[in-house]
Amino acid sequence: MNPPNSTPTAATDYHMSPDEFRRQGHATVDWIADYLARVDSLPVASTVPPGMIRSRLPATAPQQGEPFPDLLRDVENILLPGLTHWQSPGFFGFFPANNSGPSILGELLAAGLGVQGMLWTTSPACTELESHVLDWMVDMLDLPARFKSSGAGGGVIQDSASSAVLCALLAARERATGLASNQRGCDGRLVAYTSTQAHSSVEKAVKIAGLGSDHLRQIEVDDRFAMRPERLAERIARDRAAGLTPCFVSATVGTTSSNAMDPIARLGAVCQAERLWLHVDGAMSGTAALCPEFRHIHEGLELADSYAFNPHKWMFTNFDCDCFFVADRAALIRALSILPEYLRNRATESGAVIDYRDWQVPLGRRFRALKLWFVIRHYGVTGLQHHIRRHVELARQFAGWIAESSDFELAAPAPLNLVCFRHRGGDDRNRALLEALNRTGRVFLTHTILDGRFTLRLCVGQTRTEFEHVDRAWRLIRELGSP
Amino acid sequence: MNPPNSTPTAATDYHMSPDEFRRQGHATVDWIADYLARVDSLPVASTVPPGMIRSRLPATAPQQGEPFPDLLRDVENILLPGLTHWQSPGFFGFFPANNSGPSILGELLAAGLGVQGMLWTTSPACTELESHVLDWMVDMLDLPARFKSSGAGGGVIQDSASSAVLCALLAARERATGLASNQRGCDGRLVAYTSTQAHSSVEKAVKIAGLGSDHLRQIEVDDRFAMRPERLAERIARDRAAGLTPCFVSATVGTTSSNAMDPIARLGAVCQAERLWLHVDGAMSGTAALCPEFRHIHEGLELADSYAFNPHKWMFTNFDCDCFFVADRAALIRALSILPEYLRNRATESGAVIDYRDWQVPLGRRFRALKLWFVIRHYGVTGLQHHIRRHVELARQFAGWIAESSDFELAAPAPLNLVCFRHRGGDDRNRALLEALNRTGRVFLTHTILDGRFTLRLCVGQTRTEFEHVDRAWRLIRELGSP
Repeated sequence: MNPPNSTPTAATDYHMSPDEFRRQGHATVDWIADYLARVDSLPVASTVPPGMIRSRLPATAPQQGEPFPDLLRDVENILLPGLTHWQSPGFFGFFPANNSGPSILGELLAAGLGVQGMLWTTSPACTELESHVLDWMVDMLDLPARFKSSGAGGGVIQDSASSAVLCALLAARERATGLASNQRGCDGRLVAYTSTQAHSSVEKAVKIAGLGSDHLRQIEVDDRFAMRPERLAERIARDRAAGLTPCFVSATVGTTSSNAMDPIARLGAVCQAERLWLHVDGAMSGTAALCPEFRHIHEGLELADSYAFNPHKWMFTNFDCDCFFVADRAALIRALSILPEYLRNRATESGAVIDYRDWQVPLGRRFRALKLWFVIRHYGVTGLQHHIRRHVELARQFAGWIAESSDFELAAPAPLNLVCFRHRGGDDRNRALLEALNRTGRVFLTHTILDGRFTLRLCVGQTRTEFEHVDRAWRLIRELGSP
Repeated sequence: MNPPNSTPTAATDYHMSPDEFRRQGHATVDWIADYLARVDSLPVASTVPPGMIRSRLPATAPQQGEPFPDLLRDVENILLPGLTHWQSPGFFGFFPANNSGPSILGELLAAGLGVQGMLWTTSPACTELESHVLDWMVDMLDLPARFKSSGAGGGVIQDSASSAVLCALLAARERATGLASNQRGCDGRLVAYTSTQAHSSVEKAVKIAGLGSDHLRQIEVDDRFAMRPERLAERIARDRAAGLTPCFVSATVGTTSSNAMDPIARLGAVCQAERLWLHVDGAMSGTAALCPEFRHIHEGLELADSYAFNPHKWMFTNFDCDCFFVADRAALIRALSILPEYLRNRATESGAVIDYRDWQVPLGRRFRALKLWFVIRHYGVTGLQHHIRRHVELARQFAGWIAESSDFELAAPAPLNLVCFRHRGGDDRNRALLEALNRTGRVFLTHTILDGRFTLRLCVGQTRTEFEHVDRAWRLIRELGSP
């Protein structure tokens, strides 16, 4: 059999030839360009029932290769109806996961180069570009200089804020036990703290790291859903009195539920006094600090031991790209380092290089800095600021409409691009409204519970969301929210 | 300022327009096609000194956006000298991380679609294609049917075998403690087992999960570097007698150091008798089971609770793509599940769908099944088998040359595509030989220590490696290995 879609260099070569790659690559790029141009016309959320997509796929893998155009055809015909279009300008759900042309092409290039960044020596440019661009980010967001790799700290790209908080917790655990937890295991005495409004990733990390959810304190919040520092201090004192070992606080700059901002400076003061590791999770909202007028969200960050935010949420960079910074990289490396013989090399032993293997859970890693570098260079700081400001402006406009309406009310402050609101008609009314909205296929929103009440969330962060899309959402909300 | 390289849809739109994306996308595809065509002519390993690449990058991010062609130019001029070319046919180091045209384009498409697969409902096709293709893989490798999602098990794509072994350990930990470890934390009594030859990821997982490296037993191996089941049984008995709680065994099908094959059937019998979770790591070598003649490596796998192999190593699929299978998905989900309000949805509550969020450490996830699906469909089972057989044949040819040579010797059996060998002249001679080989820029090999002696490793797994490249390596080895 001849391979169906390549000019074989030998009679028995099934690989895609460079020419065929060129041809099919152009076709794939064109498909994506068309997709992004028409995505607003597709129903935002998929409505297929469970099992529908699988039922349209063959039960077994093909024995013989198939022509590439058949693959693209099946993406269109079989998969597309089963996709929820996160890149639709009508996508207002969860937190966004936006992308952009330069990011997609950066990801493409990383795939084509196919290098491994686990050690400096396995591709020096992969490591050095990452350290460098993350130092850029420190300046771009005006973060504390201690997070720079030019000092004792440094940044690394993780897959997600979940992995970042886990790595921070592991470093905190090891520091609090005098470097004993990696060797002897957890002892049932370590305690971690976060707010009742924090992301579920903190609870997951506490379970994974062997502290146990019984040792995670969910500290009460104030009427703006922000952690109360005095409650934190009280709880730490109680735990110490009980013979436990407080080690870690995870604060949030922009909670997933309502975009609440924990008071970093006051929490940091508690952590300093108590010698606890302070991690700050700015997963979506951190990007706002590109603009000087929003940098107040990071006030006090110089007291944090680690910080994470996700360009893959709101900075036009494909998932996965979480920027994780530590003030003391040695503490992180001590917690995660391993060095088997088959990875030993002269550069590592010289101590002159960063081996990112020791900054994360997995060993292997892609060249993710490429896409972030592409995004920053394509937009420039000015371009990024422009679009972030625009999203915040649109969200504030929407929040204003809610505030002025007699049927609806704001459910929480809307400091940036997330608006939490509800119809005054009660939970059932709001639940029905959310379903009706999403059923239109023109917009997609998700919900949360605030003060025990069902609450709709509208988050403006999709790359192509403009006034018309927010206006459309508001018109649908009023229409479907009427009796 | 006007954005430099897009036709703005509004005066203040800095995004790359669909037309510009098309143009620059074609240019990027062409760059990759050219790169893959010329990669054999580039020095395989980068020789830049630490800091060189960073010194060529601007100290701060650009304020204004830059034209896309400048980015590609800098990839060529600044980054390329700092890359070690994992896609070079002269790359014989570590384990390979090969790629292919269809895989690169699958990754491109995943980036363009930009959907999230954390929940079934966030893009049903993303989840269903993944479950489906992983069921295909069970058949393609002739793995036990219990790993299929059509029964009580199922497969999921992880970023790496490191993450897979961590997830397996967490499930084992939770099962062994009667579902108490997540809640109460580790108690300092849980014990895990692997061989002295296992990958460092097992030690890392044991540290992360809070067991502590003191509670990892590295079981002795036989003269083929395979774990000795009777030693495992003895050690478990001793630990039980000491009041400890044995919970987890990680066996390897093809160790990183020497490609040693642990005896799964005999280890599985021990685990069954002792009720321990057996995880099997077939990171690179698992792919060999595409060919019936190599399936003996998986003998006894029906006794395993979990299994992982990496298409991103040897199956022409870009990193990251580790296929992780469990026999009892409920055990895995119990260990990793979280359900905050903002992720609640009707599909999840119906119990009729898979939410892959609960099968992994992070929350978010890319549409990684696309590239694997593309690879399988492009090559067909026949095409994949052809290339795997060819790699094994080339490695065996090379092993034959070593065995027949008077100056060199094999340092371990070469069951598949990894050959461990050394010059008979001693460690210093071999160390010098490795450096000299890599300095030529024509080939890249790495080393290990076996029986206390410095050993060279040659792994045939790069997509484009053919006879001429292995022959070239052998000629250089003889030439540079002579006095």
